[in-house]
Amino acid sequence: MNYWKPDRQSTLPLHKQIEQHIQSKVISGEWPIGTRLPSQRQLAISFEVNRSTITIALDELKSWGIIEGNKGGGTTVINNTWNVIAAASQQTIDWQSYVNAGTHQPNLATIQKINHAEFIQGIIRTGTGELGKELLSHRQISSILKQAPSELFLGYEEPKGNIELRQQIASYVKQWGIYCSVDSILIVSGAIQALQLIALGLLARPSSIIAESPSYIHSIQVFQSAGIPIYSVPLDTQGIHLQKLEATVHLHQPGLLYTIPTFHNPTGRLMSQQRRDDLIRLCQQLRLPIIEDDVYRELWLDDMPPHPLKASDFNGNIVYLGSMSKMMSPGLRVGWIIAPEPVIERLADIKMQTDYGSSNLSQYVASQWFAQGYHQQHVQWIREQLRIRRDQMLTLLQKYFADIADWDIPTGGFYIWIRLTVTVPMRQLFQQAIQANILINPGYLYEAEATSHLRLSYAYTSPEHLQTSLVALKKCILSLRR
Amino acid sequence: MNYWKPDRQSTLPLHKQIEQHIQSKVISGEWPIGTRLPSQRQLAISFEVNRSTITIALDELKSWGIIEGNKGGGTTVINNTWNVIAAASQQTIDWQSYVNAGTHQPNLATIQKINHAEFIQGIIRTGTGELGKELLSHRQISSILKQAPSELFLGYEEPKGNIELRQQIASYVKQWGIYCSVDSILIVSGAIQALQLIALGLLARPSSIIAESPSYIHSIQVFQSAGIPIYSVPLDTQGIHLQKLEATVHLHQPGLLYTIPTFHNPTGRLMSQQRRDDLIRLCQQLRLPIIEDDVYRELWLDDMPPHPLKASDFNGNIVYLGSMSKMMSPGLRVGWIIAPEPVIERLADIKMQTDYGSSNLSQYVASQWFAQGYHQQHVQWIREQLRIRRDQMLTLLQKYFADIADWDIPTGGFYIWIRLTVTVPMRQLFQQAIQANILINPGYLYEAEATSHLRLSYAYTSPEHLQTSLVALKKCILSLRR
Repeated sequence: MNYWKPDRQSTLPLHKQIEQHIQSKVISGEWPIGTRLPSQRQLAISFEVNRSTITIALDELKSWGIIEGNKGGGTTVINNTWNVIAAASQQTIDWQSYVNAGTHQPNLATIQKINHAEFIQGIIRTGTGELGKELLSHRQISSILKQAPSELFLGYEEPKGNIELRQQIASYVKQWGIYCSVDSILIVSGAIQALQLIALGLLARPSSIIAESPSYIHSIQVFQSAGIPIYSVPLDTQGIHLQKLEATVHLHQPGLLYTIPTFHNPTGRLMSQQRRDDLIRLCQQLRLPIIEDDVYRELWLDDMPPHPLKASDFNGNIVYLGSMSKMMSPGLRVGWIIAPEPVIERLADIKMQTDYGSSNLSQYVASQWFAQGYHQQHVQWIREQLRIRRDQMLTLLQKYFADIADWDIPTGGFYIWIRLTVTVPMRQLFQQAIQANILINPGYLYEAEATSHLRLSYAYTSPEHLQTSLVALKKCILSLRR
Repeated sequence: MNYWKPDRQSTLPLHKQIEQHIQSKVISGEWPIGTRLPSQRQLAISFEVNRSTITIALDELKSWGIIEGNKGGGTTVINNTWNVIAAASQQTIDWQSYVNAGTHQPNLATIQKINHAEFIQGIIRTGTGELGKELLSHRQISSILKQAPSELFLGYEEPKGNIELRQQIASYVKQWGIYCSVDSILIVSGAIQALQLIALGLLARPSSIIAESPSYIHSIQVFQSAGIPIYSVPLDTQGIHLQKLEATVHLHQPGLLYTIPTFHNPTGRLMSQQRRDDLIRLCQQLRLPIIEDDVYRELWLDDMPPHPLKASDFNGNIVYLGSMSKMMSPGLRVGWIIAPEPVIERLADIKMQTDYGSSNLSQYVASQWFAQGYHQQHVQWIREQLRIRRDQMLTLLQKYFADIADWDIPTGGFYIWIRLTVTVPMRQLFQQAIQANILINPGYLYEAEATSHLRLSYAYTSPEHLQTSLVALKKCILSLRR
């Protein structure tokens, strides 16, 4: 009956496309008031989507008062001058100018596209920095929830967060040689919020920070939005390059160093013990505080990594970040900052002002996760799974990518940082891969100059999909090769 | 054996005081290495605290490596040159200068004191803007948690938040005449985060906003920290004063109006229908967007309030804020913004950058809360309880405060805004009340000039404690009366 179909490659959800399609029929007068719509089944067949997608679209249109359900189960157009249209045409506020005016930087365009494309049905995500669904700890969380006492208190918590969780974390980090009191711990909603609080709370203006390059930090706008530029220092095989670090500090007098010494994102690199010692010594000399992002620590695949920098921090120079997200569940939104008390007090105060603390329910689950002893067993299992996945990815790369790329073998974390040895326009590759239902994380997100790199992740995509996606990705690369 | 006792009026927790006391004994050499500490029981008796408080303090000291448990259950001093002391004396980073340098304003000093004093054991909180523990929905949340499917997905959610929850909210707000699609809804971690996102995402610099005076907004620093001053417009009995609003807009050309039309915080005032209509018309004329904070809507005690401004927003001028915090559970940290799609897209993008979305677990519980039909029954019960508490507070005020204060009778929400008719130095009253184990919310938090006002809340303090606290408060007032 009609030949329009939603575009499956679009980042707009299918139901939304269908909704807009029907709206346009109504506005244009093509479907005047009183028009009876085809049945949901017919629409589903015509648009080649699930019935549930049609249901969502029609429910939306009903909520706007554009269509109405009949007793017989059919649907009729009842209005073509509803609020949205009215709003669109008479709108007195130019919201776009407000949107453009805000001081916070929008996400990088590619990150925005990734954030949306992740929800395209059937898309395979080759670079996602999360554990796949099948690796999440559903069973244990469910068991914690079922045992939750019914008098579970869900009021607000202390500014620094749930005290039991802070006790658990204080005792948990002792195994890596970090000794701290509960008063030096702040519970946050993940490491990204920690960085936001640091940007707002600890740095003067003008001020700058130093980070490795490439680094995860370049893919987010948290420091830039706060007006704090990031100066880059390269990595060598042992970790951040110290001579260059020192030179950059002398040149720019930055306020902080942000580093991921353990299973670095995106390179997977592990800082050696020697480099750690030298880095701590140098930063002390330079009076440069360190933000140590240590969220991948437990995901070692071959040997246990050296202790965190924080374990050798006898002078209180280091702000340490940890998180449940990479090892247990990202959706819980629980992380922590360990730092000298005046720093924690300050950041806790700002956290109260920005979100009034993290979800108590999440904090309760995290605290029970440690208290009930789920953690050890779970990370051991995760390590086994990640080891299998890493090895599979390396085998596939050897088979399909050896002639077009090179890479290092990571000993932990989620990522393989590959460098294409053929010349490919990376932004076009990103787009073309989406057309082929494959989502990639281009290297330029992590280092502007890394136009030949990709961040691959073996954590998210299930082993069944990995081969398909790498084969299809190679095809895209070859087709764009110059 | 010793005469030191922790100070119960201090804002420092008891366990922390005990910890510092023991530390000072060790550092001073009073308790040299090898000293055997008194038993936990003896310490508890000596300091007049619970054994559990002693346990926390000793655990902390153990975690620092200062003391060590023996097999016999005793505890011995093993170190007096531990990391903290080392850190304190050799520290190379001057964190205090970092703390002072950050751009985000610290919380108002009184708010900081309140945030800490809330955790003093036995303190009675007369102004807290939360439901008391006994009014929280433990039973229902517990039932939702017990039924949670074990395959509950705890990965990250879409940038705008859990789709089921957004569907529930779209259908929930229809009862107040708000028709919106799921794409116009953003899930946030409470209304305070919504304001933070708006400050970062929608306002140019320089820019300003307008708010009622008094207003909750003056007690938080979210706009000021973003460099956005707030201009005040007074309230009359019908709501915000329109002539004064118009004059202020012409004078300052603000970017937004922030208003709480329904059961205003702190005055409890309800904007009349006529004023709502006039306000919408005026703001449209002035092209002034409105932030409508509607978190108290369901807590009407006498009659249902008029529909939200948003229900008459045919031109997309209004950003609407709702929350679970005041009607169900603050610790869940779930709220929502309803606004034109470009606004929602922008705020969702910033939210992704600041905390990568709200807790999935909390979003799941909130969604089931509506889906399983708990909501209606619960708010009806809450209204009954609040009605009893409001009436009790009014009776007590009549009995004890008629000669020293006046107030209006609120028809909904949590608050009675009382004005002392005797002259009392409010900051001193705040301090003296804490000495008497009573926490008050002074009016100056909500309006700098409101030096004779207090925000009382009947939501938090249980009926048994209300009389005690008001009697004690009156005593404080009379003792400070000039």
